Amino acid sequence: MIEAPYLLFLGDAPDPLAAKVAQGIRDWRPDAAVGQYRMEGCRADLGLPDMTIAEAVAAGAKTMVIGVANRGGVISPSWLSVLEEALGAGLDLASGLHTLLRDEPVLVAAARAHGRRLLDVRVPDRRYPIANGRKRRGMRLLAMGTDCSCGKMYTALAMEREMRARGMKATFRATGQTGILITGSGVPLDAVVADFMAGAVEWLTPDNDPDHWDLIEGQGSLFHPSYSGVTLALLHGGQPDAIVLCHEPTRAHMRGLPDYPLPSLEELRSLSETLGRRVNPAVRTVGVSVNTAGLDADAARRYLAETERRMGLPAVDPFRDGAGRLVDALACG
Amino acid sequence: MIEAPYLLFLGDAPDPLAAKVAQGIRDWRPDAAVGQYRMEGCRADLGLPDMTIAEAVAAGAKTMVIGVANRGGVISPSWLSVLEEALGAGLDLASGLHTLLRDEPVLVAAARAHGRRLLDVRVPDRRYPIANGRKRRGMRLLAMGTDCSCGKMYTALAMEREMRARGMKATFRATGQTGILITGSGVPLDAVVADFMAGAVEWLTPDNDPDHWDLIEGQGSLFHPSYSGVTLALLHGGQPDAIVLCHEPTRAHMRGLPDYPLPSLEELRSLSETLGRRVNPAVRTVGVSVNTAGLDADAARRYLAETERRMGLPAVDPFRDGAGRLVDALACG
Repeated sequence: MIEAPYLLFLGDAPDPLAAKVAQGIRDWRPDAAVGQYRMEGCRADLGLPDMTIAEAVAAGAKTMVIGVANRGGVISPSWLSVLEEALGAGLDLASGLHTLLRDEPVLVAAARAHGRRLLDVRVPDRRYPIANGRKRRGMRLLAMGTDCSCGKMYTALAMEREMRARGMKATFRATGQTGILITGSGVPLDAVVADFMAGAVEWLTPDNDPDHWDLIEGQGSLFHPSYSGVTLALLHGGQPDAIVLCHEPTRAHMRGLPDYPLPSLEELRSLSETLGRRVNPAVRTVGVSVNTAGLDADAARRYLAETERRMGLPAVDPFRDGAGRLVDALACG
Repeated sequence: MIEAPYLLFLGDAPDPLAAKVAQGIRDWRPDAAVGQYRMEGCRADLGLPDMTIAEAVAAGAKTMVIGVANRGGVISPSWLSVLEEALGAGLDLASGLHTLLRDEPVLVAAARAHGRRLLDVRVPDRRYPIANGRKRRGMRLLAMGTDCSCGKMYTALAMEREMRARGMKATFRATGQTGILITGSGVPLDAVVADFMAGAVEWLTPDNDPDHWDLIEGQGSLFHPSYSGVTLALLHGGQPDAIVLCHEPTRAHMRGLPDYPLPSLEELRSLSETLGRRVNPAVRTVGVSVNTAGLDADAARRYLAETERRMGLPAVDPFRDGAGRLVDALACG
């Protein structure tokens, strides 16, 4: 559990995209960030107050979150003195980078000296149980993708926001590093040991009120040969009542695999329901979430209308249209 | 890679079943074992020469393999002096137990002092790549089960033996601890980090001669919610050309999950082929391997005949009948 509120560290981000983790926190948990910390040459700006570490501490910050990723996901040597200063001022550090805070001796020493925590969300912070397959109380929704990186996290977060705005009980459940940094907790599923994947998802989505929805962040794709096992563990551990299909319509092939075409939404629906029924016979697909960033407004509208007709399901781009119709669909059926 | 030949350590095995890892090596790699080492009170006997450590070294042994598992999979304190003596005499130690050789300070010290290796096959000994999904040369067969522990390893080993006897090129590929100890190498798939599961299987079954068969040990079941993700990674990483369905007909429910009935062989075939085609459009199911240990000879014969008729595939118990008809089936189609 990462303690909020945060000071968002943007470092020397060469462009806004490099700070997309910080942007995600800013977009989805605006109350969690008191300010941003930018170094010389930083080309990202979240529109938050620029703060020194002392100012952030005075404003109540508890954790400095590394909100920037550079090439290779390493901790840049030029950041170290700032990170050390943050620990000295009483902040925890949280990072989702590939290279770990705990592997930097200077940070380990500073954290120990000041009694602060180094939170590497890239790797699990506990042992998970083996899944037991037992049905849990409460409702669960899982975002399933035709591919990796096609809008699953965004869809689940947009649904959580809409449901909370309507006064519904809803919790986004993070299964990846960015999601964990945004919400402060979760399971870094791709780093869990094989035997415990499904058990980790059961642990993440425990018994809850009968009218509470867990909105589970999807990972990978059943059709992506590199990661399909992770996706199936998520489906079998998550026991979803509802599935939202996620798709990016301009992609020419599966991410990183030029020889693999994308499956159709029909194939994704059929396979997800077939496999999902094993753990929840009542599972149903409630809608389609399309990332239309690669289409102009007209083409996006046409694509959504055509998809909606073809699939017989609401089809929306939650970024353009909001997630209202996906949430409406949960109430039906 | 575990260096052969072995001295098989049976310790104080309370019964023959406790020594089933050693029995597996004795059955499948008889040339790999020069003898057995039994302690006071041992109730297992492989019919191999009983040897002192000095005699085993004189007979050419390179590794002492822990061939016994006690409750909890721990290293019994009473074994330590023997294991230490083995290291002192120049043997490596290999173990598939849950508690690791490397976590026993006395063994670590002895291994260092004598320049020997502690081989814990329970955990991976390397980092694996992310799967790339590229088609590899050579042929692959994967054993898929209706459940865990229903004869997948036995089936693949029996087919390897039969194929080698016929002069075919065949290699059993171990994906579990017992299989690794039997053959001396492999991937402990259940202990691999999620993102690298399929890549580990690709690594295990690399490009080969066009007429060479990898016989890949199956793990878990697509229908077992605790382990299904591991099984799908095996299917997508293994890219099998041929699938053998494995089944234990007397089981009342999935192993460890009283609420989950076993799938039918038809369901297993359909789902395995659907998912397998994603990485190998030519995949086909060639036969059924039934573990009939729980049936008498007549009931076994009837069950196999009925299954064969129903599935339209050869159905055999390789333990009773050998794997010849499964190997025959590889040549057809």
